[in-house]
Amino acid sequence: MRLNSFAVGLLLSVYFVFIYLPHATTALGGGPVPVSDGPTVRKDERWPLMSSEFGEVSAVKISDGKNGCYYLHFITMNPCSLFLPVYLHSEMLLYVNSGNGTLSWINVKADDDGKLQQVVLKRGDIFRLTSETVFYLQNNVVEPYGYHPQNLQIYAIFPGSEVELQNDLLVGAYTPVHDLVLGFDNRVLQSTLSVLPLPLRTRRNKKNNVPEEVIEELRGGENQPLIVDGQFEISASKGIRALIGTNDIYNVENKKKKKKKDKMMAFNVFNEDHDVDNCFGWSVVVTSEELDVLKDTNFGVFMVNLAKGSMMAPHWTPNTVEIAIVLHGQGVIEVVCPGIASETKCENSRLMVEEGDVFVVPRAHPMAQMSYNNDSFVFMGFMLKQEKESPQYLAGKLSILQRLDRKVLAKSFNVRNTTIDWILGTRRV
Amino acid sequence: MRLNSFAVGLLLSVYFVFIYLPHATTALGGGPVPVSDGPTVRKDERWPLMSSEFGEVSAVKISDGKNGCYYLHFITMNPCSLFLPVYLHSEMLLYVNSGNGTLSWINVKADDDGKLQQVVLKRGDIFRLTSETVFYLQNNVVEPYGYHPQNLQIYAIFPGSEVELQNDLLVGAYTPVHDLVLGFDNRVLQSTLSVLPLPLRTRRNKKNNVPEEVIEELRGGENQPLIVDGQFEISASKGIRALIGTNDIYNVENKKKKKKKDKMMAFNVFNEDHDVDNCFGWSVVVTSEELDVLKDTNFGVFMVNLAKGSMMAPHWTPNTVEIAIVLHGQGVIEVVCPGIASETKCENSRLMVEEGDVFVVPRAHPMAQMSYNNDSFVFMGFMLKQEKESPQYLAGKLSILQRLDRKVLAKSFNVRNTTIDWILGTRRV
Amino acid sequence: MRLNSFAVGLLLSVYFVFIYLPHATTALGGGPVPVSDGPTVRKDERWPLMSSEFGEVSAVKISDGKNGCYYLHFITMNPCSLFLPVYLHSEMLLYVNSGNGTLSWINVKADDDGKLQQVVLKRGDIFRLTSETVFYLQNNVVEPYGYHPQNLQIYAIFPGSEVELQNDLLVGAYTPVHDLVLGFDNRVLQSTLSVLPLPLRTRRNKKNNVPEEVIEELRGGENQPLIVDGQFEISASKGIRALIGTNDIYNVENKKKKKKKDKMMAFNVFNEDHDVDNCFGWSVVVTSEELDVLKDTNFGVFMVNLAKGSMMAPHWTPNTVEIAIVLHGQGVIEVVCPGIASETKCENSRLMVEEGDVFVVPRAHPMAQMSYNNDSFVFMGFMLKQEKESPQYLAGKLSILQRLDRKVLAKSFNVRNTTIDWILGTRRV
Repeated sequence: MRLNSFAVGLLLSVYFVFIYLPHATTALGGGPVPVSDGPTVRKDERWPLMSSEFGEVSAVKISDGKNGCYYLHFITMNPCSLFLPVYLHSEMLLYVNSGNGTLSWINVKADDDGKLQQVVLKRGDIFRLTSETVFYLQNNVVEPYGYHPQNLQIYAIFPGSEVELQNDLLVGAYTPVHDLVLGFDNRVLQSTLSVLPLPLRTRRNKKNNVPEEVIEELRGGENQPLIVDGQFEISASKGIRALIGTNDIYNVENKKKKKKKDKMMAFNVFNEDHDVDNCFGWSVVVTSEELDVLKDTNFGVFMVNLAKGSMMAPHWTPNTVEIAIVLHGQGVIEVVCPGIASETKCENSRLMVEEGDVFVVPRAHPMAQMSYNNDSFVFMGFMLKQEKESPQYLAGKLSILQRLDRKVLAKSFNVRNTTIDWILGTRRV
Repeated sequence: MRLNSFAVGLLLSVYFVFIYLPHATTALGGGPVPVSDGPTVRKDERWPLMSSEFGEVSAVKISDGKNGCYYLHFITMNPCSLFLPVYLHSEMLLYVNSGNGTLSWINVKADDDGKLQQVVLKRGDIFRLTSETVFYLQNNVVEPYGYHPQNLQIYAIFPGSEVELQNDLLVGAYTPVHDLVLGFDNRVLQSTLSVLPLPLRTRRNKKNNVPEEVIEELRGGENQPLIVDGQFEISASKGIRALIGTNDIYNVENKKKKKKKDKMMAFNVFNEDHDVDNCFGWSVVVTSEELDVLKDTNFGVFMVNLAKGSMMAPHWTPNTVEIAIVLHGQGVIEVVCPGIASETKCENSRLMVEEGDVFVVPRAHPMAQMSYNNDSFVFMGFMLKQEKESPQYLAGKLSILQRLDRKVLAKSFNVRNTTIDWILGTRRV
Repeated sequence: MRLNSFAVGLLLSVYFVFIYLPHATTALGGGPVPVSDGPTVRKDERWPLMSSEFGEVSAVKISDGKNGCYYLHFITMNPCSLFLPVYLHSEMLLYVNSGNGTLSWINVKADDDGKLQQVVLKRGDIFRLTSETVFYLQNNVVEPYGYHPQNLQIYAIFPGSEVELQNDLLVGAYTPVHDLVLGFDNRVLQSTLSVLPLPLRTRRNKKNNVPEEVIEELRGGENQPLIVDGQFEISASKGIRALIGTNDIYNVENKKKKKKKDKMMAFNVFNEDHDVDNCFGWSVVVTSEELDVLKDTNFGVFMVNLAKGSMMAPHWTPNTVEIAIVLHGQGVIEVVCPGIASETKCENSRLMVEEGDVFVVPRAHPMAQMSYNNDSFVFMGFMLKQEKESPQYLAGKLSILQRLDRKVLAKSFNVRNTTIDWILGTRRV
């Protein structure tokens, strides 16, 4: 039938143009991390980067629709595993979602004579590492009370990636050290990794070079996954929280003591004073002005814990983007578009999100978050702040509605003045 | 032939996918404001955003072809109308092209305890409002001498939008307050707009909430246009130019007094000293260094009034883009491309423009503007300046031609030295 | 069926409009300078901009794949030629690759009363000119010892062009002065280039205007190429290196004297102290902090001269892009991709380059450069530095490998500890 060849031709061309070319698949995620459509990325939509019997790493690149993309990694390490050393060439903020482990790092800037440092990780910790740092992770802490060994789950965001306006990620955030070395061919490595420490240039002279068999043996590790068996003796993990000092531990009861912290690399979000705390839940916001570890970055951190049947009232931040991950439960995020109706592509939306989902709320978009009646709703996130600012609220004494002329407000909604009294809280049941 | 139906199918699918879908029309402009092709946007090519019996708002998003798009709104208010309160989340510079009215605004930054301010608008006024301001407009000033009521016409530009390199506008410049509220669903509003002023979180408990009937009545105003009937009593418009002080009024005769103005929000371009003033016309340029109201912005303002048969001689600004609107008459803009011939996509152009047209001249492009012999040609505009600088001229004592070696200049044009004397003004008739 | 041929016709026209037209060639390069694919641009892939019997200019626009494109011009002037005056509206860094000549320039900023300056060029010179400068070049220096007259070859880069994220170049770096003038139509020129020096606006009154015949004669030079016959008397080229002072001449033997230079416009890369110098070659790096002429720019300059069979060991610069041109010989550049395997589109590469090729290495990409066994390999280039920093090395005492725990490193490569000793230089043959 003619329709047959027509259909075949159409399907072939559609397939070829739209399906085959962009999605020529390779291993795992199949190519570079794409920018995600829409304001949410489901847990199962994360882009796998590596997976082994000892753990996995996946990535999310999410756009706020305006001025950039935000790049996150999700690292899961099984008990007794080792996340091999990687060289960081981006800033990194990480949040420990579950489990325990050890983070080891050393800053390798040419003028820095730093030593290897270690710290024990626990749930709620937020760490910051600068670029030109080499770090590795171990899930190796044995709980003393027979607690079942847990996966170590880490969420990381890479500040600075938001300026990459192109869709495809072009410079990954960190490179495995063995890949840095093995990216060069054998002759380069033989000359470079010589038996004698040499200055910048070397003669490709076989006499002093590393034997080829050694290079071949190194290449055996070329296709190692990033997370491998961690059962071996490195340095005793002394539980060196002491390295960081004891000042980061606050009693939850001492809500008044929100003094500026000593300069250090980490803090724990569960130990921070709550900004809001009542029977409907609590929230914590830590900005880069308040915490030395975040100084010189544009990033702040927040966590919100809504009790069941509760709501974070409508608010917005004029110049701050929020990138959040749901830690527990389910919830609804309502987002309202700024602008005049149909002036932009934006549409008011209700996002149904659940544990593991990533969602982003662009700047200047009013939002409200709600839990369901059957469970709490907990999410944490990173805020990219352009400037120091406070959120705006639609209700309460800080509401913008309170400050307008009552008659004009009535005209805005085309209602009677008495109706407006309800909005302004001057009318009681 | 089978190829026939195959081809038709292919063309249809191409049409459908590429042509039909993006241009599926909705009300008015039909979707988000597009970036305009080419350096001019005709009056009838402005993108309508809203229209009612009381007025209309349209938009223009124009690219300078290099590093950004500029976003403008054109607001027309009929006599006795009210432009409903909107929340500005961008900076706004506005120019009053015709008519009279009242601008009311209040800054709602969380830490600002500001009161509602008002000022009477008249033709030539330039105002600046910062982001996080709520404002509304009224065309309500009754001229005392029986003057026919005029439309209030305002041209606005939103600095900061030029960094949105994407084609589609994603964050509108301001949001009607009623849309901010009604963007949330009923249950959110019932909890939020409670009778008692509440802290951040609320329980969705019907006892304290606003009755559903009230919310439904509010929703009645959901589809209100932005400009409505303004016949009602708000606060008396006291003609409060006094609020701003009297320092902005200069006698046109006092051209020497171009002293720095007191800090205030507005000035009138017709009261500024003219930078150039002779029988061929006049021009005014006000930069952000000269006027406090423009401080901290990258924007300056200019107006040019060419008498009939006159010309603004060829000049260019190395780092400043000009976005202009024709206020009166017709004219020709000649724009020359920088660079070597066919090095870029740019082509020398002659733009024929008339009243209402918007045109943009990118940085470093030499231009000349000319009026016709039968009428004057008046245009005003905004300049996006990267740095403090003065224009370059091709002629006159500041001309770059005057400063080159005469023989080299002759070689440039491949003419005799005596011919060059004409250019350099050393030869007389 | 006729529809069949219609369809063919439509497809053909689609082909023509969308595929053929953009590649329709005009003179020379045929359209605007395109961004080059891939990290190298061969000598024969440079985009010709103009060519005459007296010389030629070609361009390269090369992307580093991340955050910008770099724009270079290649100017070749035959003996006794003149590069006509051009007006620079970009910053310009130039390197003299071969030959001798004279550079003349004058800064034409409106508030600058500068005079014409001249300097004699020789191989290895690096000059910087600011925007709003008019300059011209002459290949006119006669060597006193009967040396064969050489072509004057200049490589130029235009800082600031790297921020143009769009593919097509929209503002060329400089405009021939005659094109600036002749871009306007006759009537504008007659009014502008009047016999009397006039203020800004002019009346288009034939009485005072330049006669039309003069304008026509000027137009005769409209299609002049940029490089023309230079045999005519301008000002005596006095070999005015004296204009710049004598401080830029260092004895090659005085390697210790690397003191900060007096403020001047030029230096010679062959007179700089070598940062590394041994029997395998030498390298020079001059950063913007070290040299006044480069101050206020983000650009540094480097040159590397590898002896035969030598190598520049693997290294990378975390925040610096390198744009290099091969001056002599052939070589291999190995570039390793940062990131996890298949996280990005980047692929490890071996670039085979030869004299005249341009190559770019993006930031954070480890690289090694090698010469062949039969000849030296010399390249120079410009570094776009985001911050002040030193390179990182994979080997030698600054190597990052030296600083990691030995057992963890063994795990990285999945080899025995003894094998790792080879890498760390603790094992000897």
